[in-house]
Amino acid sequence: LRIKAGIVGGTGYTGVELLRLLLQHPHVELKTITSRKEAGTPVSAMFPGLRGRVDLAFTEPGAAALRDCEVVFFATPNGVAMTEARALLDAGARVIDLSADFRIRDLAVWERWYKARHAAPELVAEAVYGLCELNRERIRGARLVANPGCYPTATQLGFLPLVEAGAVDLEHLIADAKSGVSGAGRKADLHLSFSEAADNFMAYSVPGHRHWPEICQGLAQAAGREVGLVFTAHLTPLIRGIHATLYARVTREIDFQQLFEKRYALEPFVDVMPPGSHPDTRSVRAANTCRLAVHRPPESAHRSDTLVVLSVIDNLVKGASGQAVQNMNLMFGLPETAGLGHLPVVP
Amino acid sequence: LRIKAGIVGGTGYTGVELLRLLLQHPHVELKTITSRKEAGTPVSAMFPGLRGRVDLAFTEPGAAALRDCEVVFFATPNGVAMTEARALLDAGARVIDLSADFRIRDLAVWERWYKARHAAPELVAEAVYGLCELNRERIRGARLVANPGCYPTATQLGFLPLVEAGAVDLEHLIADAKSGVSGAGRKADLHLSFSEAADNFMAYSVPGHRHWPEICQGLAQAAGREVGLVFTAHLTPLIRGIHATLYARVTREIDFQQLFEKRYALEPFVDVMPPGSHPDTRSVRAANTCRLAVHRPPESAHRSDTLVVLSVIDNLVKGASGQAVQNMNLMFGLPETAGLGHLPVVP
Amino acid sequence: LRIKAGIVGGTGYTGVELLRLLLQHPHVELKTITSRKEAGTPVSAMFPGLRGRVDLAFTEPGAAALRDCEVVFFATPNGVAMTEARALLDAGARVIDLSADFRIRDLAVWERWYKARHAAPELVAEAVYGLCELNRERIRGARLVANPGCYPTATQLGFLPLVEAGAVDLEHLIADAKSGVSGAGRKADLHLSFSEAADNFMAYSVPGHRHWPEICQGLAQAAGREVGLVFTAHLTPLIRGIHATLYARVTREIDFQQLFEKRYALEPFVDVMPPGSHPDTRSVRAANTCRLAVHRPPESAHRSDTLVVLSVIDNLVKGASGQAVQNMNLMFGLPETAGLGHLPVVP
Amino acid sequence: LRIKAGIVGGTGYTGVELLRLLLQHPHVELKTITSRKEAGTPVSAMFPGLRGRVDLAFTEPGAAALRDCEVVFFATPNGVAMTEARALLDAGARVIDLSADFRIRDLAVWERWYKARHAAPELVAEAVYGLCELNRERIRGARLVANPGCYPTATQLGFLPLVEAGAVDLEHLIADAKSGVSGAGRKADLHLSFSEAADNFMAYSVPGHRHWPEICQGLAQAAGREVGLVFTAHLTPLIRGIHATLYARVTREIDFQQLFEKRYALEPFVDVMPPGSHPDTRSVRAANTCRLAVHRPPESAHRSDTLVVLSVIDNLVKGASGQAVQNMNLMFGLPETAGLGHLPVVP
Repeated sequence: LRIKAGIVGGTGYTGVELLRLLLQHPHVELKTITSRKEAGTPVSAMFPGLRGRVDLAFTEPGAAALRDCEVVFFATPNGVAMTEARALLDAGARVIDLSADFRIRDLAVWERWYKARHAAPELVAEAVYGLCELNRERIRGARLVANPGCYPTATQLGFLPLVEAGAVDLEHLIADAKSGVSGAGRKADLHLSFSEAADNFMAYSVPGHRHWPEICQGLAQAAGREVGLVFTAHLTPLIRGIHATLYARVTREIDFQQLFEKRYALEPFVDVMPPGSHPDTRSVRAANTCRLAVHRPPESAHRSDTLVVLSVIDNLVKGASGQAVQNMNLMFGLPETAGLGHLPVVP
Repeated sequence: LRIKAGIVGGTGYTGVELLRLLLQHPHVELKTITSRKEAGTPVSAMFPGLRGRVDLAFTEPGAAALRDCEVVFFATPNGVAMTEARALLDAGARVIDLSADFRIRDLAVWERWYKARHAAPELVAEAVYGLCELNRERIRGARLVANPGCYPTATQLGFLPLVEAGAVDLEHLIADAKSGVSGAGRKADLHLSFSEAADNFMAYSVPGHRHWPEICQGLAQAAGREVGLVFTAHLTPLIRGIHATLYARVTREIDFQQLFEKRYALEPFVDVMPPGSHPDTRSVRAANTCRLAVHRPPESAHRSDTLVVLSVIDNLVKGASGQAVQNMNLMFGLPETAGLGHLPVVP
Repeated sequence: LRIKAGIVGGTGYTGVELLRLLLQHPHVELKTITSRKEAGTPVSAMFPGLRGRVDLAFTEPGAAALRDCEVVFFATPNGVAMTEARALLDAGARVIDLSADFRIRDLAVWERWYKARHAAPELVAEAVYGLCELNRERIRGARLVANPGCYPTATQLGFLPLVEAGAVDLEHLIADAKSGVSGAGRKADLHLSFSEAADNFMAYSVPGHRHWPEICQGLAQAAGREVGLVFTAHLTPLIRGIHATLYARVTREIDFQQLFEKRYALEPFVDVMPPGSHPDTRSVRAANTCRLAVHRPPESAHRSDTLVVLSVIDNLVKGASGQAVQNMNLMFGLPETAGLGHLPVVP
Repeated sequence: LRIKAGIVGGTGYTGVELLRLLLQHPHVELKTITSRKEAGTPVSAMFPGLRGRVDLAFTEPGAAALRDCEVVFFATPNGVAMTEARALLDAGARVIDLSADFRIRDLAVWERWYKARHAAPELVAEAVYGLCELNRERIRGARLVANPGCYPTATQLGFLPLVEAGAVDLEHLIADAKSGVSGAGRKADLHLSFSEAADNFMAYSVPGHRHWPEICQGLAQAAGREVGLVFTAHLTPLIRGIHATLYARVTREIDFQQLFEKRYALEPFVDVMPPGSHPDTRSVRAANTCRLAVHRPPESAHRSDTLVVLSVIDNLVKGASGQAVQNMNLMFGLPETAGLGHLPVVP
């Protein structure tokens, strides 16, 4: 079985990470990869690491070749997939969108945060939010999957057991999240330059980050009610990796370690570490894994009523392209782990 | 006026940073610097950056030379100052201890966290906690100053206005703090090696960090009552810099921006940034400054009741050696800013 | 076909990289991994990135389990393999030594540079130097392979075509090589700590580096005569990667681009880039590839008679563990590329 | 004495470094700083590290304010100073140009490498090349100084003693130079972004770098004849710092250590390290110092006839803005070290 796959917008980091994963996937045949700007350029000229491993050149988007694909990944900026997905779906392809176009079900919320008018409201209604650990069954049957954002993946996986169990104060969740620079994409921005971002650390978008409504929506789905969340994003001098430090006030005492272990016992890509652990981002570097640890600090006379959950992912794998492949595996009835067994690269 | 100064234990990062600051201080004459391990080695042989700028060699600790100093800085591991400070004080010197020996007033707490028996309880009672913005007047008259830790400096300066104003829930403060690697000192530890710490991010000591009781003590002093705090430390791939992201639940609505601006209006080394700012650690690199920003996220339909304060310092300057010099300036009646005007090094 | 493999000394970086490669190799069954210091510790407790992927614990070295292995890798410090290889060979195992014990054929040279008496001179005579591109046929039949050092791999592959063609001045080769910090191994050395090595660059061992005689030996074999080489090593703030910039004086004008392309046309792991290229280390990160580019600078009125060759490898893969697996593949008649198809991780 | 100074183009890295140095210079009053793009923006809004330390806002270039300055620094892209310097000189100001406009005396060479027509050939004839250690006396009397490039500073200072002594083969000099990313300027280029440049190493412009003719010109001046040089530039993941590794074939045996020590004995900003040293870039970080070490590798049976010189500078200080201030000091009869005593920031 070889699924014919296409990538729209293959020159960004999620695009090239899809290339890395799909070219090594046992059940995928990469048929086409588009880029308006680089049409005609051999893929291996742009990414020398792929020399000798891929013969394709970038083609114009909208090229007929995409229509022959069984699955098309959008690794494009926001606003592209919502205008192009319809035609591909009509042609019979399944679509996995790594951008934010189909992630928010409430159109008004989407339009407020993304400052645009949505081009395909009816597809928003159809799209399934592709957090496999939350929506596995619905993903299997989906034609259109909205692949989650990187912060939302790390944050939701860390909060899900607590929210589902209703054991914490849902009004006052705090997510203090730190991201490597690749999370901002492959682009020429001054503040992302090495001289600015190296040996430096800062918060950003504290007044409001686009991933905030996405996280709230997912947690609300799990909770069956609205949640209150403060989300703080930070730029960290690493290339890949997200570390989310999550705080929740306990409202019902249970064995939280056990809660997490049970919740994720059967999940191939979520690893609940032993008590006392501090997962580091490199333990998931280049791998499709989320590692979690549950803490109850501090060790002092009186125990705190605040729970601390540590959650790490590689933003380009479990936070983007790896999760997209995981979604594809589900949609096509493949083993969920197919092509996703890469061990992390350490050191 | 030239104060005769000595440094005990000058081979660590706080020691060499003291060297950098004292050698450029207009009112200091560095008389001696000790190191048991490096006795006899010229200082400039160990730190080539000081070639041509310092003629001293390291001497044995306890050498008579220290007794001629008017001020002695301890840049030693915990446990040294408490055994050696008495003799220097008796000889008429003032002592500024950069280690943790005199920071905690409650001996039982100190002994629990530092796993040792305290050698000079009576000096603990005398010592003044050297957070200048909190204890300025008492520092002026002190013989013995306990220089604050790096995390405690960033965290306390960020929380102080809120705690003093009694405008937030003092039971549930959260400090999510990120430190550069130099905060761990100049030592050969595997987990601090470049191959382990670069391109990596992790929390550590989540079950209990030694700076937690120190922060709690300082905030309790400011509040006039005990406080509840969850403190999470993270290791970040930068050399210098601490970024503390602080969360507090508002209990009384006031103008928090104004609160901070007023509180620190006369402070030469605390900079309250304009609303909406995100101070980065490099904006204080190699400078004795703490920059703060106050946020009320998220920008959404309903305002959160959680306040977010961003606080950055250079852990080796305002978080250690710069603050020690600031304390010395106060103790000797010098202008508080003398020798501390270095601009940050950017980029 | 599953080869039973063992690793001696599996806690260093070449050891854990062997783990990464062997655990994903289709024709290998990892039977045992030893570590004197960590005996009893589950491998996945030490390397959390391997959680769920390996059940072994470290065992005492010399344990009987090694004798059942068909191939044993020594990922030990220098001096171990030379005392333990004999028994394993006698028991019928093949041995691939990643240390320097069997790399130098001239015992006097070895003993001068490694400051020890060699424990197994007769094995030195038998051992095959495992630079596959130089000694492929002899490796196929070898019982004992001396896996090349990282600098020697990058340097020899860059010089080989020139030396074999006799087209450059063999008396005055210059190799200016830059290595990531992992090349120094997984150890707690102050000068390798993040605070020392990050945002810093320096040469080291300029008066004499142990890899110098190894490179000279390999080039002399290719040239059929002694060569003169100046070799300069530099420590660079990257984790993985070697970049060797090689200079040779042209003595006979030929088409050097073509020379390189022909020499490596059939090599699966050497990539000669198009004219004008500047390979970067990340293009081979985590991959078993050496990329080369040939330059003739400067573009000026008169052409220089100096050729510049750029050579990049991942020091832990093609410069160590990947090459070891490549050697194993040759020794056991497997496809040379088996288990070595991992694409580089970019960014 | 306070010299009235202006900066044209103050938003790049050499501009902000000039700000850092001039704001702390005892004999300078910064009167104006221009930026076409940022006119009206307070300097401290763009560079928060300067908050509270500078009241100026960026002004339109060409503003009258510049005419009142006694010295004007051009920290602009190439091509600006050559069109604007004339008017300032006519108004009586001295001009120090940190760009390349006046560095190359041979107009044809300049125009070939900078791909433009020179706008002020007569000023090229007048300009003095501001390598203080080479042209000190002429700089004292200069109206217009061409401040050297960063690579040329490190390379020339390392080669000068050898070239002046005529003790090496002047036809075959090799400079293998590595630069931190700030050397490329403060700009939004993809290949300078953190995700591209971190944990990566590469050569660039090997076929021809603009600093090559500048170095050749300076060495030719010192030699009294043309020289042959191969120059290779590399991009290194540090922010500041250049490490040049220089190779020269000895043609006359002398005591090279002594040669260097004598040549630079009176130079305040060139430090010849003891034999066997390996200067690292951080030993000059943020300082106006060049450190040099002389080696004769390898330690082997027969001594090599190749000399290796290691040269490190901070590209933004001794390689740009610090050297510019040094030139200003010379031009205005100030102590050469005024305002340049900052110790390096380590770690």
